[in-house]
Amino acid sequence: MNDIASKVLNGDPRSVARLITLVENSSPEGSRAMKDIYPHTGGAHVIGITGVMGSGKSTLISELTCEYRKQGLEVGIIAIDPTSPFSGGALLGDRVRMMELATDEGVFIRSMGTRGMLGGLTSAVYDVVEILDASGKDVVIVETVGVGQAEVDVIKIADTTIVILVPGLGDSIQAIKAGIMEIADIYVVNKADKPGVDQTVAEIESLVDISCSNRDRKTPVLTTSAKESKGIVELAQEIKKHKEYLEKSNEFEAQRRKRYEAELIEIIRKRLMNFIFDESTFKGKVELLIDQISKKEVDPYTAADEILGKILK
Amino acid sequence: MNDIASKVLNGDPRSVARLITLVENSSPEGSRAMKDIYPHTGGAHVIGITGVMGSGKSTLISELTCEYRKQGLEVGIIAIDPTSPFSGGALLGDRVRMMELATDEGVFIRSMGTRGMLGGLTSAVYDVVEILDASGKDVVIVETVGVGQAEVDVIKIADTTIVILVPGLGDSIQAIKAGIMEIADIYVVNKADKPGVDQTVAEIESLVDISCSNRDRKTPVLTTSAKESKGIVELAQEIKKHKEYLEKSNEFEAQRRKRYEAELIEIIRKRLMNFIFDESTFKGKVELLIDQISKKEVDPYTAADEILGKILK
Repeated sequence: MNDIASKVLNGDPRSVARLITLVENSSPEGSRAMKDIYPHTGGAHVIGITGVMGSGKSTLISELTCEYRKQGLEVGIIAIDPTSPFSGGALLGDRVRMMELATDEGVFIRSMGTRGMLGGLTSAVYDVVEILDASGKDVVIVETVGVGQAEVDVIKIADTTIVILVPGLGDSIQAIKAGIMEIADIYVVNKADKPGVDQTVAEIESLVDISCSNRDRKTPVLTTSAKESKGIVELAQEIKKHKEYLEKSNEFEAQRRKRYEAELIEIIRKRLMNFIFDESTFKGKVELLIDQISKKEVDPYTAADEILGKILK
Repeated sequence: MNDIASKVLNGDPRSVARLITLVENSSPEGSRAMKDIYPHTGGAHVIGITGVMGSGKSTLISELTCEYRKQGLEVGIIAIDPTSPFSGGALLGDRVRMMELATDEGVFIRSMGTRGMLGGLTSAVYDVVEILDASGKDVVIVETVGVGQAEVDVIKIADTTIVILVPGLGDSIQAIKAGIMEIADIYVVNKADKPGVDQTVAEIESLVDISCSNRDRKTPVLTTSAKESKGIVELAQEIKKHKEYLEKSNEFEAQRRKRYEAELIEIIRKRLMNFIFDESTFKGKVELLIDQISKKEVDPYTAADEILGKILK
């Protein structure tokens, strides 16, 4: 086992940060370390939290993290929303709370921006989840803005997915249209101090009644007020209950299998793309073909065939 | 040239719809037709329109399309936002307008949902742009919700990108954080009948002043009220001016080259993934490896190496 892998397994935050950078840069050292840490992963409960901008996701995640810390659990947070306070977009009040978390050794926060076209955001997130898991985090929270396809793909790796809505504005209806309701294991109506909360809860509950009729678990709808720290203990309990449900019903294993499938696909995709576009010999050929496509001398489908013919057995 | 390709080149809407379905399903017939139509593409002006939910994108696109129709131009619309009225999520008032457009032979509307993990949304959108272009559409409008990474990738193929903001709510600031300001060629402050429009315009203009100081074209900021059909003629003019600017400054060619590069990458990615995961022999091997990963008998990095070793020269 290489040095960085053993340090990550010992929970050293610097090594965790370094390994994340290595895998983000597709370094061979990073891949070797990932192989070493892999047998020690799978212990963390991965929680996906998604909701539109302004739904108070980050404040809720802060509160939830504090609750886990009180329970003696270590927490990893991966923020994919570029407007998230975890990504530096905080208001002053939020920032103070973030600072508290950032200086807590039991919490590791990583903000992830947009990756290059070849790298792929999803692939990097999978790796970071594994690294935080291996480093001994009991809970890994993945925060996404939940609108784009890449974000929905990312959330697929969570064991428990929480969809946050806010009262009014017909968000619930919009969320359903956007397809994010399908992925929810728990609904949270945040900002429960605002008017319209009862109506929003009723709306979601009526939808849950329709959609979950043939499942043995009814998706719960909770209300929270992250700013006033209300409903957070209940949310943590509901998350725990969902994990217990997964384990009892054997869904846990099935869901994890999907996660590993998605991970494998991402690793293969990334390696192939690096192989084609980083290798100096191929890159020249690819550039030449793009020139020819621009001049309409060749079509991209024929160009793709040519490149694939060179690399595939 | 095969039958479907020649019918698409003649602008037959049924064949256009059929070819889109073929390429979405990665059919070999679709690929052959794409090769045939490719030399006849490149004529359409591709316009990307992005903005958050509720910014009135779809109404604006309807109005803009009507304006183009008055000018005798044919229009293709690709709606990627699942909450878009073009995708069936219309309010009643919108729906009437959509129906008008839908029955106009000079307009082709395609709504695209989330694609499977192997297919990729981006790849399918590129193909649909080429098909609509080849079918004789003068303008192809791509509508995205503009938050997720996949959506930003999609918008990269546009010649002209329009970012829509609405007055108040500090959207402009959030948009900047989300990185969507970088991609704007034209800003539109829609819902100009609402209060706060002057302030929003001033905010954006001050940002444009800072960010574009070293470019010879200043990004214009327009105001529209799509519901009252205000500012639409001016927007169409500004879009035309942007295209003229691109052509004069040779940026047009450079931008198109980037589009072809993105297209080639997507085609290669899609073919490789289909090769690995659809081929009956490989699929079995892949399933077996995923089982082993689930049981922690192998790590996904080693599994990826094994699969790549089998397929690469």
